Amino acid sequence: MDPAPGPRPVDHQGLEVLDDRRCLELIESTPVGRVAFVSSGEPHILPVNHVLLRGRVHFRSATGLTLLAATRHAMMAFEVDGHDEATRTGWSVLVRGTSHFEQDEHVLGELAAQDLHPWADQVERRHWVTITIEELSGRRIPGHAAAT
Amino acid sequence: MDPAPGPRPVDHQGLEVLDDRRCLELIESTPVGRVAFVSSGEPHILPVNHVLLRGRVHFRSATGLTLLAATRHAMMAFEVDGHDEATRTGWSVLVRGTSHFEQDEHVLGELAAQDLHPWADQVERRHWVTITIEELSGRRIPGHAAAT
Repeated sequence: MDPAPGPRPVDHQGLEVLDDRRCLELIESTPVGRVAFVSSGEPHILPVNHVLLRGRVHFRSATGLTLLAATRHAMMAFEVDGHDEATRTGWSVLVRGTSHFEQDEHVLGELAAQDLHPWADQVERRHWVTITIEELSGRRIPGHAAAT
Repeated sequence: MDPAPGPRPVDHQGLEVLDDRRCLELIESTPVGRVAFVSSGEPHILPVNHVLLRGRVHFRSATGLTLLAATRHAMMAFEVDGHDEATRTGWSVLVRGTSHFEQDEHVLGELAAQDLHPWADQVERRHWVTITIEELSGRRIPGHAAAT
């Protein structure tokens, strides 16, 4: 049963705090996310199509800096968001965690079965990168009664 | 006059390359972007409302890691994207460049005149961070004749 309605938790910025279950649902239902990683000490950000599988974020990557970072088990950040321009409301879910170049045959089989075809499929993206979630947070901007 | 129609440039992944003018137009017309930066050697990513002014990206920030990075003139990455789930097409524009905590009174006046109210306005975000664009690139995923 749903809990009784009541005030939702907010953070020190007045944003509604989304619980972990809702964060994972939003990651799962949002087709495009963005991954950030560090290469040579500098930040990089890329849009990705992703899959959530048993609490881990997976995305396909061609060879490149992303894959190199994953091979080194670097920390990555991942983000999904959604917004409504009319009401100036929105939400975002942020993930941080260690990445790895996925080599587990069982996991790779499950990912293949998920049938994720990255939209940018002109070049085959053979490699899967996995982010193990270590930090998960979600916020929603409450609606405004009147826009100014 | 528009140039004669012809094949559009594509990159090695088969993605359509967007020229700088189009990239800047897309940054300007997209209300929500994401900024990535490095703190203590680790990547962080945050959604922001931004303003493009004379080829620089500006966003407001409360105090925090983002502002600290800007005060140190750290490299930041910035991204906007858009997509259409039905056709599995999309585009993204990526920016990288040095950030700074904006202190130029003239620029601050212009930004105030732009009337940007960040959506998450429960806490006043007093500080502007500026990213001077050093790398700019945009890609579009060509439409698919038939989804498989």
